[in-house]
Amino acid sequence: MPEVFPPDSVGLVSPQLFTFDTPLELSCGRNLQNYELMVETYGELNADKNNGVLICHALSGHHHAAGYHSTADTKPGWWDAYIGPGKPIDTRHFFVVSLNNIGGCHGSTGPRTINPETGQLWGKHFPPLRVRDWVTSQAKLADKLGIAQWAAIVGGSLGGMTAMRWALEYPERLRHCVVIASAADLTAQNIAFNELARRAIRSDSDFHDGDYLEHDTIPRSGLALARMIGHVTYLSDALMEERFGRELRSGTFQQGLDAPIEFQVESYLRHQGDRFATDFDANTYLLMTKILDYFDLAREYGGDPIKAFSHALCNFLVVSFSSDWRFAPARSREIVKSLIAADKNVAYAEIQSDMGHDAFLLPNARYEGVFRAYMTRVAKEIDTFTTEEDAL
Amino acid sequence: MPEVFPPDSVGLVSPQLFTFDTPLELSCGRNLQNYELMVETYGELNADKNNGVLICHALSGHHHAAGYHSTADTKPGWWDAYIGPGKPIDTRHFFVVSLNNIGGCHGSTGPRTINPETGQLWGKHFPPLRVRDWVTSQAKLADKLGIAQWAAIVGGSLGGMTAMRWALEYPERLRHCVVIASAADLTAQNIAFNELARRAIRSDSDFHDGDYLEHDTIPRSGLALARMIGHVTYLSDALMEERFGRELRSGTFQQGLDAPIEFQVESYLRHQGDRFATDFDANTYLLMTKILDYFDLAREYGGDPIKAFSHALCNFLVVSFSSDWRFAPARSREIVKSLIAADKNVAYAEIQSDMGHDAFLLPNARYEGVFRAYMTRVAKEIDTFTTEEDAL
Repeated sequence: MPEVFPPDSVGLVSPQLFTFDTPLELSCGRNLQNYELMVETYGELNADKNNGVLICHALSGHHHAAGYHSTADTKPGWWDAYIGPGKPIDTRHFFVVSLNNIGGCHGSTGPRTINPETGQLWGKHFPPLRVRDWVTSQAKLADKLGIAQWAAIVGGSLGGMTAMRWALEYPERLRHCVVIASAADLTAQNIAFNELARRAIRSDSDFHDGDYLEHDTIPRSGLALARMIGHVTYLSDALMEERFGRELRSGTFQQGLDAPIEFQVESYLRHQGDRFATDFDANTYLLMTKILDYFDLAREYGGDPIKAFSHALCNFLVVSFSSDWRFAPARSREIVKSLIAADKNVAYAEIQSDMGHDAFLLPNARYEGVFRAYMTRVAKEIDTFTTEEDAL
Repeated sequence: MPEVFPPDSVGLVSPQLFTFDTPLELSCGRNLQNYELMVETYGELNADKNNGVLICHALSGHHHAAGYHSTADTKPGWWDAYIGPGKPIDTRHFFVVSLNNIGGCHGSTGPRTINPETGQLWGKHFPPLRVRDWVTSQAKLADKLGIAQWAAIVGGSLGGMTAMRWALEYPERLRHCVVIASAADLTAQNIAFNELARRAIRSDSDFHDGDYLEHDTIPRSGLALARMIGHVTYLSDALMEERFGRELRSGTFQQGLDAPIEFQVESYLRHQGDRFATDFDANTYLLMTKILDYFDLAREYGGDPIKAFSHALCNFLVVSFSSDWRFAPARSREIVKSLIAADKNVAYAEIQSDMGHDAFLLPNARYEGVFRAYMTRVAKEIDTFTTEEDAL
């Protein structure tokens, strides 16, 4: 609970709801007659409107990426370590836009909002989405903000997939694409973990086939278990060993009791799961994990990622983390290899970290250094460009 | 369904139930007044009774390790690849003993059997067990069979933990200890996966706090999910990729349907989970995973595995598999290092395999070669020993 916000924080921020009245055509063939996006922005859009940086969130993310909603907040936004004055995504140079994607549960149109055609909650009837639908809705948001071209689109994990899809769908609308801890598609193992999480939710008797809100309940234990499955796989073995080892919650390894002995790691997971179950929506979780599973960068390009990337016009920064086994460095190297083969400009960094997939969210000096260096270059391009324009 | 059994099969086998009327003192302080063990044996016990090989099963294993129960069986026992005439555990030389451990659900005393003191099913009231309780009950079985000393005790995973515990508890009762795909204790990550599985079971509304049989039901979906979680983690990423990749069950990636598209890997997991839910008991699964979590080879030796192993008198073979990430080669190397420091005779092989933890159950030429070479030496010792004895 900061009395005074740190000097490198964007400080107090307020989300804004953007309303769109033109129908959004979805890749499934249906459309959203109108929709809303919950958005936060940090920094100022310059006169040339060429300093916009779009943040794409991951599976359980949302619009609140940096700063605080009130002085009572115990934690800042989810990517506060990397967004702010003097941070890699430097709000002294960039106008940063962060939104909750459609299908989400943090204010944008999704299962927890009303379907205007029925007057009922969308719930499980929310249309199936693809990453490209997010890209389309984000492009409409850019239009509304007057941003013809983003300085950079940045995302980790599912957010990295979104950034890559942007580079193929609207090549002329971004100059840089930053893809962190991501992949061109999910492996079978990743799909399997997502299916376990979905099954945990669907098996909860409080799920009511997706109509839990109509039954005035939520599938709390299923959602908690789903999150716990995700959480275990987002961490590395080494990190868990270091944090928890075989430490017992009680401190003693009493035998002879029917009451089960609990290891610290069990207690930690239960806490994480329970917290998530309170904050997140089950139908959104099902929808989002399916979007992850279906994502296949090169599918419409004959399965050839080189052919896919040949459509891109931007420069790329690709980052992976050594202990990330759900989006392993090998998957990032595949992206880099395809980009090189497609003759694109790409920088790649593989960061040493024990933090697993979650590393992309956490402080790490080397990661910060690479990220900062790249974004400084992006910022310098803008300044040069602006100066040249001004000089005309 | 073999019309004729393969020549290297032990062929048709029948389990036998052994009854013990002397109370078994458990490490929790309680005891089993009497108990039964479901046992299979393959090969013949020699006159010197020194050719016994004990097989210790893993989490979901049982007594049926080799051969067929009937000509209608579609599959042989779980370790048939390694037990039989001419196989590494060669039944022409060895008298192989394989049992369902107490607490199991395949015929030995456990949650699915009657507590003689109450006349009711044990269910969730079955006493908590430790690996050492299995060792004690197996020693009583050896007594009954007249086996004072095993030629070898062999086990994979939890079975490897059991074999190691034997070496410390009854050092004079085994000449060789074969520890495959095991560890001296579980990592925090492994405990976490077990806790996810337990939570899946306990969250099932059909679990009824463990009293599901009294409610004439079983927690089918919870048990299936528990197994699916285990299964995903027992396989390697590479194997899943090779077997399933991103193949779709329907063959087509149709969009625009609310009905979810299903990947092959999802369908496979569902099938595995459902089959397990039919065959296995939920209380046994909870009990067994706790036994795994609690196992800590060196705890009573001040946490020092060298001190622990200094009590052993037997020789050791330790085997690990390159792609096994739940019982990683590094964990086997820790065992080997401690054995060497304790001045014990140990052979170690790290086998290249894409099969993950399940590799210990599956055919693999290199593994078979190492295993065969070691067991041939064990067999030769017996023959020599017998011949020397005969010559007196």
